This record gives sequence, C-alpha cells and structure tokens, in this order.
Amino acid sequence: MTLALDPAAQDLLFREAHTANTFTDEPVSEEQVRAIYDLVKYAPTAFNQSPLRVVLVRSAEARERLVPHMAEGNRPKTATAPLVAILVADNEFHEELPTLFPHFPQAKDVFFAERGAREQAAGLNAALQAGYFILGIRAAGLAAGPMTGFDAAGVQKEFLDDDHTPLIVVNIGKPGEDAWRPRGPRLDYDEVVTSV
Amino acid sequence: MTLALDPAAQDLLFREAHTANTFTDEPVSEEQVRAIYDLVKYAPTAFNQSPLRVVLVRSAEARERLVPHMAEGNRPKTATAPLVAILVADNEFHEELPTLFPHFPQAKDVFFAERGAREQAAGLNAALQAGYFILGIRAAGLAAGPMTGFDAAGVQKEFLDDDHTPLIVVNIGKPGEDAWRPRGPRLDYDEVVTSV
Repeated sequence: MTLALDPAAQDLLFREAHTANTFTDEPVSEEQVRAIYDLVKYAPTAFNQSPLRVVLVRSAEARERLVPHMAEGNRPKTATAPLVAILVADNEFHEELPTLFPHFPQAKDVFFAERGAREQAAGLNAALQAGYFILGIRAAGLAAGPMTGFDAAGVQKEFLDDDHTPLIVVNIGKPGEDAWRPRGPRLDYDEVVTSV
Repeated sequence: MTLALDPAAQDLLFREAHTANTFTDEPVSEEQVRAIYDLVKYAPTAFNQSPLRVVLVRSAEARERLVPHMAEGNRPKTATAPLVAILVADNEFHEELPTLFPHFPQAKDVFFAERGAREQAAGLNAALQAGYFILGIRAAGLAAGPMTGFDAAGVQKEFLDDDHTPLIVVNIGKPGEDAWRPRGPRLDYDEVVTSV
C-alpha cells in the first residue's frame, strides 16, 4: 500500500489499460472530450504555458484527408476508430502567457522571444500534456490508441499552419474485438532509475 | 459522472494537486520511487521504446553539484526538497527495442538507425513518460515540483553523457508551508480543442 491512488484507479489508468487497435462502433461524445479536457488541463506545464492543442477529426471528409498521411499499418484503425484526435504543439503559446502566468508577465519576452526557444518549450510541454491527455482518455473509461507513425509534414499542411506541430495522432473509443496484443515487457527499475 | 475515474482519484492526480515549492523534511524512500515506477512504466510509448531514465539525486555531494545549474529562482527549493530527480531522455533507447518490441525487432534498424530520428523520438516519448511520472508522484501521495529552469548542458555534463538529454528536474516530497500559489488560469476548452 505504498501508493495513495486506489487500486481500481491504478488499474483503470495504468495496469489494466492497453493501447487499443480495434474499437466498437460506440461514438465518443463532445461531452466526454470536454470532461477529459476539464480534468487534464490542471496538470502542470512550465510557466503554465499549456501549449497542447487538440484537433478532433469529426467529419468523414476530414477523416479521408487524414488517413493517407498515416503509416500503412495505422490506416485501418485510424479509418475506423470512433474518434481520432491530432495532438498538436502550439509554437506561439507565448501569446497567452501574460494571462496564464500573471506572476511574471515578462516571461513572454524574457524567455520566449526566439522562435527556437518556443518550439523547444512547446515540444516538451505539449508532449507532457499529451501524456496527461492519454491518461485522461482512460480516465473517461475509453481506450486510447496513440500513434507517432504518420507523415508529420503532411498532417501539418493538411490540417494546421506553420505555427502548429503535430506530435501524436490518437484513436479514441471503446475497445473492440482482439483490441490489443499481450503487453510487451517493461524495463526493470534498475535499468531506468539510478542514484547519485 | 462522465468520467470513470472516481472523484478522489481525480482530486489526487489533477484537481487538488499543485506544483509544490516547499516541502516538509519527511524523506522519500526507495520503496516509494519503486512503487511510482512500477505503476507508470505501463503507460504507452511508441514501439514501447520507453526512453525515460531517472537520476535520483540522493547524496548531499550530488545535490551540491546540481543546485548551481538551476535557475536562481529554483535553487532554494532544489536545495531543500527531500528528493530531487533528473528526468532524462536516453537517445540510445533503440538498443533495447528488440527486447521491448519483439513483434517487430527490425524497428531498431528500420526506424532508428539515424541519431536524429532517435533524438526526436526519445525527446517526445520521454516527455510523455515524464508526464506519466509526474502523475505517478502524485499517485504516491507526494507533491511534485517539476522545473525546466536549469542549464541543460551543465546538468548533462555534470551527471550524464552525450547520449542522455536532461528534460526536467523534479522536486519530490510532502508539501510544506505555503507550498503553492493560487492556481493559475487554464485555457478554455474552445481555446484548445477544435473539430474538423
């Protein structure tokens, strides 16, 4: 009982959850996505910069435009998942900083005047938030199928602009038949954690 | 009740949790860090590549070497937190891929022969795992104080090698007096999520 998080929640978010490759037809509602965001938005980012943006691919037309940019092995599941979301880093997040981090409104100009610094910060912090979002999907009782196998330049050109970098495409829904393979091995604690 | 995750777990991980700036003296045990890792290791990465590495700064001598590399505003809390961890991306994660992703043992050579591709994948996936780890700290009933305000090149030279990139330094412990400011505002759903 070293963890404070109760075992059912541990199972829901981590131990019993798997990346899903097939889904049922049950739709994912706007209300569910709102509930996910309204939970995970509280998790931390540097300077509260909150650079994650989410594009929900809701229409059949948009889905048809997305699928060809996916790696071949990812196309069938991306074509059939109840909902597909593109998780994006907003490289111009600094425009919101005076509102998001009122304790130090100068942060926008002091730390993020350079585009390169913004891209680096947005990439790291939006990826942190992508991790929160994936767990948020599970918190909603849904399965996530996150994928990095896609043509990022193609997805950016198709759905975004130069200021927005796609990081992960994630299928969302209730898991279907044979939704996952047996879990792969994980690294042992001593392979990952060292002390100095 | 749109979420499956029970409200106490929502509070512990997201709603009532805050980035801590002060801590009590209570130590963080090896057993606690093991329990955190043994929970968050299950969350997904691309090809199960699992590039996150964690350096626990346990000794007083190592702490003294770390603090000067932190941004000035981060030094007092880094000097006094019960435990400090450096969260690191292993850019040579591909060596473990044949074990971690046995379904496609060629992935190591097909996708990750180039160092640039490895660095990009390690940066994204280790940041995802850093998000999981921060929530794992909270799952252990502890407060996290993640920081990106440090000299990354200095920390790398002091504690790591050329194959390992420090992403985040995180203070860990029980929150102390006045441990946090009031929470900053979050972006509204409609500022973050769009549909196409």
